[in-house]
Amino acid sequence: MLTMQDALTRLTAYWTDQGCLVVQPMNTEVGAGTLNPATLLRVLGPEPWRVVYTEPSVRPDDSRYGENPNRLQTHTQLQVILKSDPGNPQELYLGSLAALGIDVAAHDVRFVEDNWAAPAVGAWGLGWEVWLDGLEITQFTYFQQVGGVNLDPVSVEITYGIERIIMALQEKTHFKQIEYAPGVSYGEVFGQSEYEMSRYYLDDADVEAHRRLLEIYAAEAQRMIDIGLPVPAHSYVLKCSQTFNVLDSRGAVSTADRAAEFARMRRLAGEVARLWIDRRTELGLPLGTVDPLAPARPAATVQTGDGERTLVFEIGTEELPPTELRSAREQVGRLVTEGLAATRLGHGEVRVFGTPRRLIAVVPAVAAREEDHVRTVKGPKVQQAYGPDGTPTKALEGFIRGQGVTLADVETEELAGTPHVVVRKHEAGRAAPAVLAAVLGQVVTGLRAAKNMRWNDPKLAFSRPVRWLTALWGDDVVPVAVSTLAAGRRTRLLRTAEPPVIEIASAETFLETLGVNGIVADHEDRRELIVIGAQDLVYPDGRIDVTGEAALIDQITDLVEQPLPLLGTFDEGYLSLPDAVLTTVMRKHQRYLPVRDEEGALLPMFVTVANGPVDVELVRAGNEGVLRARYEDAAFFYRADREKSLAEMKAHLDRLTFTDRLGSMADRARRIEALALSIAERLGIGSPVLKRAAELVKFDLGSQLVTEMTSLAGVMARDYALHAGEDRPVAQAVYEAELPRNTGDALPASVAGAVLSLADRLDLVAGLAATVGLPTGSSDPFAVRRAVLGLLAVHRATPALAAFDLFDGLSLAEQPVPVPDQVLADSREFLARRLEQLLVEEGQPVDRVRAVLPHAGRPALVDVLLAQLGTAVTDPGFRAVAAAIQRARRIVPAGTVAGYDPAVLKEPAEVALHDAVASVSGFSDVAGFVTAVRPLVEPVGRFFDEVFVMDEDPVLRAARLGLLATVRDLGTGLLDWDHLRM
Amino acid sequence: MLTMQDALTRLTAYWTDQGCLVVQPMNTEVGAGTLNPATLLRVLGPEPWRVVYTEPSVRPDDSRYGENPNRLQTHTQLQVILKSDPGNPQELYLGSLAALGIDVAAHDVRFVEDNWAAPAVGAWGLGWEVWLDGLEITQFTYFQQVGGVNLDPVSVEITYGIERIIMALQEKTHFKQIEYAPGVSYGEVFGQSEYEMSRYYLDDADVEAHRRLLEIYAAEAQRMIDIGLPVPAHSYVLKCSQTFNVLDSRGAVSTADRAAEFARMRRLAGEVARLWIDRRTELGLPLGTVDPLAPARPAATVQTGDGERTLVFEIGTEELPPTELRSAREQVGRLVTEGLAATRLGHGEVRVFGTPRRLIAVVPAVAAREEDHVRTVKGPKVQQAYGPDGTPTKALEGFIRGQGVTLADVETEELAGTPHVVVRKHEAGRAAPAVLAAVLGQVVTGLRAAKNMRWNDPKLAFSRPVRWLTALWGDDVVPVAVSTLAAGRRTRLLRTAEPPVIEIASAETFLETLGVNGIVADHEDRRELIVIGAQDLVYPDGRIDVTGEAALIDQITDLVEQPLPLLGTFDEGYLSLPDAVLTTVMRKHQRYLPVRDEEGALLPMFVTVANGPVDVELVRAGNEGVLRARYEDAAFFYRADREKSLAEMKAHLDRLTFTDRLGSMADRARRIEALALSIAERLGIGSPVLKRAAELVKFDLGSQLVTEMTSLAGVMARDYALHAGEDRPVAQAVYEAELPRNTGDALPASVAGAVLSLADRLDLVAGLAATVGLPTGSSDPFAVRRAVLGLLAVHRATPALAAFDLFDGLSLAEQPVPVPDQVLADSREFLARRLEQLLVEEGQPVDRVRAVLPHAGRPALVDVLLAQLGTAVTDPGFRAVAAAIQRARRIVPAGTVAGYDPAVLKEPAEVALHDAVASVSGFSDVAGFVTAVRPLVEPVGRFFDEVFVMDEDPVLRAARLGLLATVRDLGTGLLDWDHLRM
Repeated sequence: MLTMQDALTRLTAYWTDQGCLVVQPMNTEVGAGTLNPATLLRVLGPEPWRVVYTEPSVRPDDSRYGENPNRLQTHTQLQVILKSDPGNPQELYLGSLAALGIDVAAHDVRFVEDNWAAPAVGAWGLGWEVWLDGLEITQFTYFQQVGGVNLDPVSVEITYGIERIIMALQEKTHFKQIEYAPGVSYGEVFGQSEYEMSRYYLDDADVEAHRRLLEIYAAEAQRMIDIGLPVPAHSYVLKCSQTFNVLDSRGAVSTADRAAEFARMRRLAGEVARLWIDRRTELGLPLGTVDPLAPARPAATVQTGDGERTLVFEIGTEELPPTELRSAREQVGRLVTEGLAATRLGHGEVRVFGTPRRLIAVVPAVAAREEDHVRTVKGPKVQQAYGPDGTPTKALEGFIRGQGVTLADVETEELAGTPHVVVRKHEAGRAAPAVLAAVLGQVVTGLRAAKNMRWNDPKLAFSRPVRWLTALWGDDVVPVAVSTLAAGRRTRLLRTAEPPVIEIASAETFLETLGVNGIVADHEDRRELIVIGAQDLVYPDGRIDVTGEAALIDQITDLVEQPLPLLGTFDEGYLSLPDAVLTTVMRKHQRYLPVRDEEGALLPMFVTVANGPVDVELVRAGNEGVLRARYEDAAFFYRADREKSLAEMKAHLDRLTFTDRLGSMADRARRIEALALSIAERLGIGSPVLKRAAELVKFDLGSQLVTEMTSLAGVMARDYALHAGEDRPVAQAVYEAELPRNTGDALPASVAGAVLSLADRLDLVAGLAATVGLPTGSSDPFAVRRAVLGLLAVHRATPALAAFDLFDGLSLAEQPVPVPDQVLADSREFLARRLEQLLVEEGQPVDRVRAVLPHAGRPALVDVLLAQLGTAVTDPGFRAVAAAIQRARRIVPAGTVAGYDPAVLKEPAEVALHDAVASVSGFSDVAGFVTAVRPLVEPVGRFFDEVFVMDEDPVLRAARLGLLATVRDLGTGLLDWDHLRM
Repeated sequence: MLTMQDALTRLTAYWTDQGCLVVQPMNTEVGAGTLNPATLLRVLGPEPWRVVYTEPSVRPDDSRYGENPNRLQTHTQLQVILKSDPGNPQELYLGSLAALGIDVAAHDVRFVEDNWAAPAVGAWGLGWEVWLDGLEITQFTYFQQVGGVNLDPVSVEITYGIERIIMALQEKTHFKQIEYAPGVSYGEVFGQSEYEMSRYYLDDADVEAHRRLLEIYAAEAQRMIDIGLPVPAHSYVLKCSQTFNVLDSRGAVSTADRAAEFARMRRLAGEVARLWIDRRTELGLPLGTVDPLAPARPAATVQTGDGERTLVFEIGTEELPPTELRSAREQVGRLVTEGLAATRLGHGEVRVFGTPRRLIAVVPAVAAREEDHVRTVKGPKVQQAYGPDGTPTKALEGFIRGQGVTLADVETEELAGTPHVVVRKHEAGRAAPAVLAAVLGQVVTGLRAAKNMRWNDPKLAFSRPVRWLTALWGDDVVPVAVSTLAAGRRTRLLRTAEPPVIEIASAETFLETLGVNGIVADHEDRRELIVIGAQDLVYPDGRIDVTGEAALIDQITDLVEQPLPLLGTFDEGYLSLPDAVLTTVMRKHQRYLPVRDEEGALLPMFVTVANGPVDVELVRAGNEGVLRARYEDAAFFYRADREKSLAEMKAHLDRLTFTDRLGSMADRARRIEALALSIAERLGIGSPVLKRAAELVKFDLGSQLVTEMTSLAGVMARDYALHAGEDRPVAQAVYEAELPRNTGDALPASVAGAVLSLADRLDLVAGLAATVGLPTGSSDPFAVRRAVLGLLAVHRATPALAAFDLFDGLSLAEQPVPVPDQVLADSREFLARRLEQLLVEEGQPVDRVRAVLPHAGRPALVDVLLAQLGTAVTDPGFRAVAAAIQRARRIVPAGTVAGYDPAVLKEPAEVALHDAVASVSGFSDVAGFVTAVRPLVEPVGRFFDEVFVMDEDPVLRAARLGLLATVRDLGTGLLDWDHLRM
């Protein structure tokens, strides 16, 4: 059996063979190998660096007294840094797995998007977590920034979670069972330390002492920075970090502390980073510098045919995140289409395909040459081209000389209304390869992702590295060259294919060749394979909810190139865990499809989709093991949580930050509670259920299970509340307070739940609007948009809340920071815009929506009004009044008061209108309005027919305008007549 | 080339193959791998443990900004723990060197005594430093105690100094040149850190912050102990240690701090140790327990001859320290002799031999059997044996039955004057093997060293492990078995011999067989080989001072079994270093013999003595490299020191502790200065030279070179003082202040030097007497005895000091602690006893010595008085007066006052004596006394002849006794008449 110490030795040896130095772990406690200066400092600056080392990584917060099977306060990382990116780091990585004895072709090894950021040290990167049969075994990151400094060159960081890997390879279910060395278990060696250090971090570390340590360390770090010594400074930044983590695990970090401490560490880390670079530069960069890659030379241009041929262009990438893949497909389609349009090459319709590792454009019938073309070159105006005697001026002569033509070639053409001398040049169309090369090159450089990264290419930037280009026009290679990449006719198959790289004969056979070799380029084809395969696997015992799981299936589809659905099972015992726990683990953590019986009850099985022709039994067993471990974890947390009182869990909220300026989650829960009770009081819908539920709200954020799986917030609250003996309505209300969690989610059914839901969201919107601001563009880190949609949905669905104005609610939501009036106004506007958008999407005519939008604070009322308006607009009377009102709005000058002296009115029509207007009764909605204004229909028509408003007599004119202004104002406050189109 | 990282990998792999776990370095700064809990905690308690790990070891005090070629603030240790002792750890260790590619047969690998103690963690052990061609590459220790707890089982600790080893293997002269990884130097990787951390530790670390850290850490350690968590407690003890070291390297540790801090750390470490053992016991000793070795079974007893044969007994050990070897040889001789004497075996004279690895007793002509023997068994008294009727009593019957004899066998014998019944038993002598087995067994168990250790044997204890026994009587194995060892006929040769173990045919051929195989068992033989070999090597260019280096040659002789003298050379440039520096390095650090020319000037060469048939060129080159490095170091320190002012060096004395209660070396230097000036003032011998020298005294203890080589104190002072432009007499006086450094050393030639020397030694004696007490037995850690001998020697040799009383000096030597009168009295007595002993050893008659000993405070005066006394005792007049004085001392009752009424005296003889006594003039020495008392000779004789002192008249009697008392008191204060024998 491969022992843990053997594994470390083998990995170290493997990376040493790849040119890595071996260094030692940091001799002060660190949370990850990344913090070791061999990573955090060495990735800075231009010097090359390759290193491998083991790092016992201390995570005080992960302390579990050694009881949790998968969680340790100190786990072992093996850390590799490749600076710069060698161009094939994934392949090198797979080689390291092989060095561990892992058959990477038999197993399902996957690169699953996982971006990394460590704000406390101003660092981030893009990359993946690597899955081995569903188990995350490695973090793989292209470092982009450290200490706030952009990295150039970029480093590849590979971090192996050794205990994880070994547990999988040794088929152990608890870390203590790991065979650390021959005949010696991990628990025997490290068990006591695990327990004692857990005790220290969770229970016994002296808080006051650590506060003092933090100050001393930070001061020492600052002093060293000031003196210009980055190495000791960095060491003290690490001590700050560890000390902070200990304070945190002891529950001693206030929100203010956290914000301040992170800011301080980030600042210190940034100064250390800049200082390090300066010092290395002063030292003359002892390790040299990385040579940037040379630009690629395009393939020789060869054109073997004159007929129309297919164009295929493949951009080979490292595994793209599914969301980026969708976007990239669209971009490729647009860029190719636009690019071709700018040429004069004849071609068929552009089709685009994509898998995680490739973006493909296929264009049939691309002509061999551009069409020939006449180009008009503009010369001087005719008037200035010829002298009075008709001889060419110097201007014309210059033009002729410049164009290399003779006077005989000159023609005259009217350009922008003025006759000009012109020359017409007949230009032959260029050959397809050259034209296509230019077009395709711009496709690659034009690609952009939501988050772009750099790799070893000196010019390109994209979601993940572009590693190869395949470009064929018919049989010929299109000589595209972009930065360091030159297109050829070779493409890559799965990395585990034999051979992994093949030549493509012609563009026409490209997709077929991929297909023959297992790569399913088309998203829809892959999706179908998955759906049908999954359904087959579970038939007849169960079924897959293809509709309900559509988003998940789409995601899975874009995680594989060659889908292979597999059926796995798990122990029935785990079915005693809440359904949501089980499915959250499956969907969110593992991308497994849940399987249910006819009644919708979960079956103890799942479908996972492997990539490529793996060893099914092996991969199944691996995935089953992973799920077992995760369920074991969940069961552990579930049991532990249930042993705690709700009050204990809620007390934990003090330790959770909401945002820097808005306090802890406990603060937020208190605000929600107060706001909910206040809303209920206003509406007279208070109840003991609401009171108790408000006391409990959000308590489950303090549970271990929700800490692990935040999406279970609410669900677990209900479960734990019931378990703790709370009344079912209370438990339900606490659950419903979290609803809706996303668009289309269930809404609170109880009034108490609805009130809490509103209070939650009002608090969130008001607080964030006042601090970080309302969302703009696509950035909405705190999901304010979703909260607003929740407000609208809950209000519309809850009759008891109809009288409640959300705009008032925003004002009621008191925050620990001042909320300026302008912020409230902006927030109301933001809410109104969301409602408008929502209603329009629901099919309401935009004019009517806008007409009722003044009531956006009461969306339930908006619904009512819109419905009434729908009826009203078919009512001739309403239409007539409305027309009159709008006419009045046009005629009456701004600022005219709706008042007049009736005695001045003389004309029967105006008197009639006056009478009618005066008799309009009160109304509160559109239906009431229709009824109320019905007496006006006739008089108002007559008025406009018979009365000339702008009489010469100013007194009369004023009275008439006043009367009209009164008409104008009918329904003001009910409908916004400006918008209503009749 | 073997890179440094490869070396770590290979060593780790080798030890892993030996069953060691691999663990990671400690994640808090430690000064040595020993402090890692994988050593310091795991060696405690009964669980087995084998481990190998790398430990970057931080020694703030070794910071040199990366400039010193051999010294780093962080060096790399590879640490191995074997618990328990596997029985062959040295052989395993040699295997590890082979794994590094070192040909241990070609190189000179030696185990040189080096005992280890870490008082701050209450730990000690015995072992060696391992030399590779003279280079210390490894520390090899049998741990005996940790945290004050005796270790059972004992652990073997092997600590490789990796940079050292690699520099040797790669033939680099500066650590920065080490090829750390292919194409990457150590300096390129770690140079910056070495510089910056040196800056931090030496110049920039915040002292106040570290003081606070120390308190926080210590408090946290104590809290964890109180809570019962040894693992975090240990971690905080380590943080204390590192913090203390930083404070120390910043020069911020006062003497009081150091003492207190060491005491605190020792106490904490002890508590952690005991707590760890308790916790492991509570946990059920997860790693099991070590099975103690089973007792050995003796060889079958076979006796093949009846004639006298030689007995040979070899006790095979691991390398004994030379001093222990001498003692052990004597013990073996004594134990074998006594053991044989207690048998009735005829035998020749016992001869004893010894090498570092064996103690051998050879006894010729040992009889095959003991002589037969009659034994008398004592029965009841005759009176109680027979009844009145002559029949046997029950007592006699019981005796007969008990002895298994009949009444006829009974005889009668007078025992202690009383007739007893006895039985005479004729006993045959036992066969030699059985008798010898018992005797030899007791030799092994009877061996004791000054410092004894335990190893894997459950019963034995000795200076180093006993690993084998060879015992032959003629052709036969003597069936000795002691604990786990059974003697046989196999002996071991050099570990690198082929084969390393051979069989011995017979006792008679034993020494010859050893000799044939290269082992020179006899000390004198080895010594001769070395002396002759060394002389041959240097002839005719130079010579070895065989007499002057006798002690060193003796030591070298006992460091090898098969001496092979080698000549090495060094660069002539190093001859510019002071002679004492060069020879100190050679003798003390390397055990090399210096080579001088006819005029006694050092030549750039040396002789070293390898053990066994090594590759001469290789070993020569290795030793030359070591010497080069050491001289390079010395030259580095020498240069650095010379760049400092004397004041700077002296300022450094604040950081050196003298003793806990007597302050720093700076305090001591101040005391010496004050005392010297005070002495000089009393004697009127003050001078500007003395004043300046007193200001400087001991300043060189603050130099780097003397810090490295304390034996150069004084020598370097003179050198540096001259270099700094001090007057030669001043420089000489500062040098002479340190004289004499040992018995027979030179003495101060200048008065100033002598005064300082006295002041130095008076301060030491007074201070230590008042704190740790005067030396008793052989224990004298602070060399108080040597200091006292120095006082005597200097006083006797310096006429200018003759008037100075050392007893007064002791009182003048003010200390930071009170010096009670009793301590002063004891110190005076101690000094007097040393002087007595010295003079007697010089051949002075003990009675005269004792007679003048009251003047021991002025030993120069003692010398004068003794010389005069030698003349005086041949003077009849002196003898007569002396006899009279002694007679008077006998006659006159104690308490009689030397006074009387002369008027009462009537007899002419008494009147004459009165007149003579009254006219005795003053005298200040024995010669003066002889002259002064000459007038008394006649009257005193006549008085005794003619006068009856004890007259009946009490008045007269009193007057006569008073007169005699006056005679009695003559010379009192000059001589102690009690002791003088005439």
